[in-house]
Amino acid sequence: MFSAPTYQGRRSRLATDLGNGLILLVGNIDASMNYRGNPYHFRQDSSFLYFGGPDVPGLAMTIDTATGRSILYGDELTIEDIVWVGPQPTLQEKARKAGFDEVRTMDRLVSDAQKAGDKVHYLPTYRGDNVLRIARWTGRKPEDIQTGFSEALIHSVVSQRSIKSDEEIAEMTWAVDLSGRMHVSVMREAEEGLKESDLASLVTGMCEAEEVTPAYGIILSVDGQTLHNHHHGNTLESGQLVLGDFGAESRMHYAGDITRTFPVDRHFTNKQREVYEVVLDAEILSIEACKPGVAYRDIHLHAARIIANGLKDIGLMKGDCHEAVAAGAHALFFPHGLGHMIGLDVHDMEDLGENLVGYDSDVKRSDQFGLAYLRLARKLQPGFVLTIEPGIYFIPELIDQWRSEKKHADFINYSALEKYRNFGGIRIEDNVLITEKGYQILGDPIPKTVAEVEALRYTV
Amino acid sequence: MFSAPTYQGRRSRLATDLGNGLILLVGNIDASMNYRGNPYHFRQDSSFLYFGGPDVPGLAMTIDTATGRSILYGDELTIEDIVWVGPQPTLQEKARKAGFDEVRTMDRLVSDAQKAGDKVHYLPTYRGDNVLRIARWTGRKPEDIQTGFSEALIHSVVSQRSIKSDEEIAEMTWAVDLSGRMHVSVMREAEEGLKESDLASLVTGMCEAEEVTPAYGIILSVDGQTLHNHHHGNTLESGQLVLGDFGAESRMHYAGDITRTFPVDRHFTNKQREVYEVVLDAEILSIEACKPGVAYRDIHLHAARIIANGLKDIGLMKGDCHEAVAAGAHALFFPHGLGHMIGLDVHDMEDLGENLVGYDSDVKRSDQFGLAYLRLARKLQPGFVLTIEPGIYFIPELIDQWRSEKKHADFINYSALEKYRNFGGIRIEDNVLITEKGYQILGDPIPKTVAEVEALRYTV
Repeated sequence: MFSAPTYQGRRSRLATDLGNGLILLVGNIDASMNYRGNPYHFRQDSSFLYFGGPDVPGLAMTIDTATGRSILYGDELTIEDIVWVGPQPTLQEKARKAGFDEVRTMDRLVSDAQKAGDKVHYLPTYRGDNVLRIARWTGRKPEDIQTGFSEALIHSVVSQRSIKSDEEIAEMTWAVDLSGRMHVSVMREAEEGLKESDLASLVTGMCEAEEVTPAYGIILSVDGQTLHNHHHGNTLESGQLVLGDFGAESRMHYAGDITRTFPVDRHFTNKQREVYEVVLDAEILSIEACKPGVAYRDIHLHAARIIANGLKDIGLMKGDCHEAVAAGAHALFFPHGLGHMIGLDVHDMEDLGENLVGYDSDVKRSDQFGLAYLRLARKLQPGFVLTIEPGIYFIPELIDQWRSEKKHADFINYSALEKYRNFGGIRIEDNVLITEKGYQILGDPIPKTVAEVEALRYTV
Repeated sequence: MFSAPTYQGRRSRLATDLGNGLILLVGNIDASMNYRGNPYHFRQDSSFLYFGGPDVPGLAMTIDTATGRSILYGDELTIEDIVWVGPQPTLQEKARKAGFDEVRTMDRLVSDAQKAGDKVHYLPTYRGDNVLRIARWTGRKPEDIQTGFSEALIHSVVSQRSIKSDEEIAEMTWAVDLSGRMHVSVMREAEEGLKESDLASLVTGMCEAEEVTPAYGIILSVDGQTLHNHHHGNTLESGQLVLGDFGAESRMHYAGDITRTFPVDRHFTNKQREVYEVVLDAEILSIEACKPGVAYRDIHLHAARIIANGLKDIGLMKGDCHEAVAAGAHALFFPHGLGHMIGLDVHDMEDLGENLVGYDSDVKRSDQFGLAYLRLARKLQPGFVLTIEPGIYFIPELIDQWRSEKKHADFINYSALEKYRNFGGIRIEDNVLITEKGYQILGDPIPKTVAEVEALRYTV
């Protein structure tokens, strides 16, 4: 963890920003898998971690905006707990390391929260268990908890968490480096006849060996055209592409989020290489476009035009690229956003509301298919860390639907598309820090060009 | 999955048992890790699975006790869903395979449940999200949902799920066999200088390669004296014991739950062997005591006496073993229950209430330290599957507390205990089916005797 003054500084900025009332940050409890006693691996709430909350279940913290005092709520272990979970540092010790002013038992939170009445500021919740806990503590109805969060608190949290400090960048670099090693291992080991699950097992094993977990569900599939495909049941066949989108969390729970796509064979086919080069161009040029003051939506649209232009060269799109992208025709092939903030969450702060994180008064969200999925749109600032992850996919179900509707027929060569039905999908993704002067790709380089990928596949 | 008539038979038995009202079984939704869009791996509710519910998020089913009709509630995927998750069999197809009479959209559940009014029978919930969903569907208050479950429904579900069919036993055997291979791999690979996490990574990797997940958090530690130790940060040192308690789920989510303990070195020390043999005796004799009609609590107490007697031989306990166990003195070394039911849940049906699953009107729960943790106590029946998992642990914090209180000083040689402070813990566990005539250990044999374990360690 970071130093006590770091956490104290973050909490006192919250108190200053809010100016009134009692700030309540809720730590997670264990998430039940199939019964209370059999939880998923514990994942602490990211904002709770950011403001110094210990990485153990069942806690909460308050910050009194009037006095600036911060209190950690929780119960020390009993001897019976120790028999089951082993000796642990006390909450008092943990609280001291994070610079809290006081530790109180959990039952005190009920009276403290109810004393503050309507002036309790809390964040939106993403677990039903926390809805019920906050309702119990504040004496409000659960249905009111889901809508009664504090927008002022969200803004204050987002403004701090959006700008990564040097020590946060170091954590993220660790996560990206491990993620990169995971990708290199998968690229080395993949071969015809293996199952996707054999490769996924490398990924989980490498995380486990470092005592961390994947930052999100592993995508590792020859069906790369399915954007969030978490099944690993296919056998790798010659002629296919493997799309791997996975990353590790650091021990402090900062995420890495990397995607690479490579052929099951040692070489890309010409057809694969053509499409790959378009995605690679879009990725590299998007990264190079990153600098403070540029709206991320403009980079997204720029990438979309590179993709439309490239697909036109291949003969799959036609007409004016600017018009095609303005109409949303490229979204048949590139139906998702170019990227998102990344930090303690892989989609950083998504629990606080994508529009409050990625959009602002200058840039409003579109409802156009494809662009609507763009999670980050606003102007970049030094200290932002984000993903750049363009892709081109051939999604049979979507192609069939659009063709039957003759959708964007001015921009799409549906007849030429037939030969690409089983192509799959290609995505390439890196994690990028916005610096004062431009950008920096986090972590050690991971093979990315056709030559680099083929060279790695050849050394096997 | 099993055949449609199997699921229809199970549901119609529920309807007959209940006799009135509308039975509502709730499928799980995705469990949020750090925001809604980043869920843990999906785990369907076990009772929902048992009664034919498909293994996908966001569903529910009802069974009308008057007509016997069963309805599956859920929403078909949209084209936008398919872009993200890929094409899937329709709910209609899934429902047909499980013999449902009808599929209705989720919004119909609100009117259907409210029409049934007070006569909706549902099971206890272990996820806050489901509390909120049931409250919304039934129009009741969330705080009432947590207490308003149907005890009649619990009894009916428990009576069916407690008796495993041959096809269930086949699934469980698959899970135990994979779990056994995981243990053998760990025993083969373990050596001085490796980290616990290196071994844990073998376990997760082997599960991932089979497209399944561990049935519960992996315990794999040189600190075996901590009963539920999920940290894997220690480095294996010569002279230590490694306790591994882990198992896989089958693809249909039946659990395996196996424990083995072995030395980091190739041989047990004499001191380790002495204690190991006591645990092994307790395990083997407990298994051999299993047959219909015997109360599991009696087998637990028998195991406790074997442990007390063995520790007396070693010089760590003294006095009369029957008296020591009746007083609870053995619980310093054996503080947990001998085992539990196992099936779709590793602690089978624990969400329905341990006392309603493991106890009955003949056998009531004790509040004595140690015995209070016994999850199964009632008389065994053919078709029960349960774990047998005695252990001996040297828990410094517990020893210190008991000694300072002079607790059970008539039965415990506290002075001799000093040399065992860093011993760790030993547990041995198998999964056992109760047959008409006695018992059957599930799965292929896994090295268990000192000779077998040392032979395996020697072939490395």
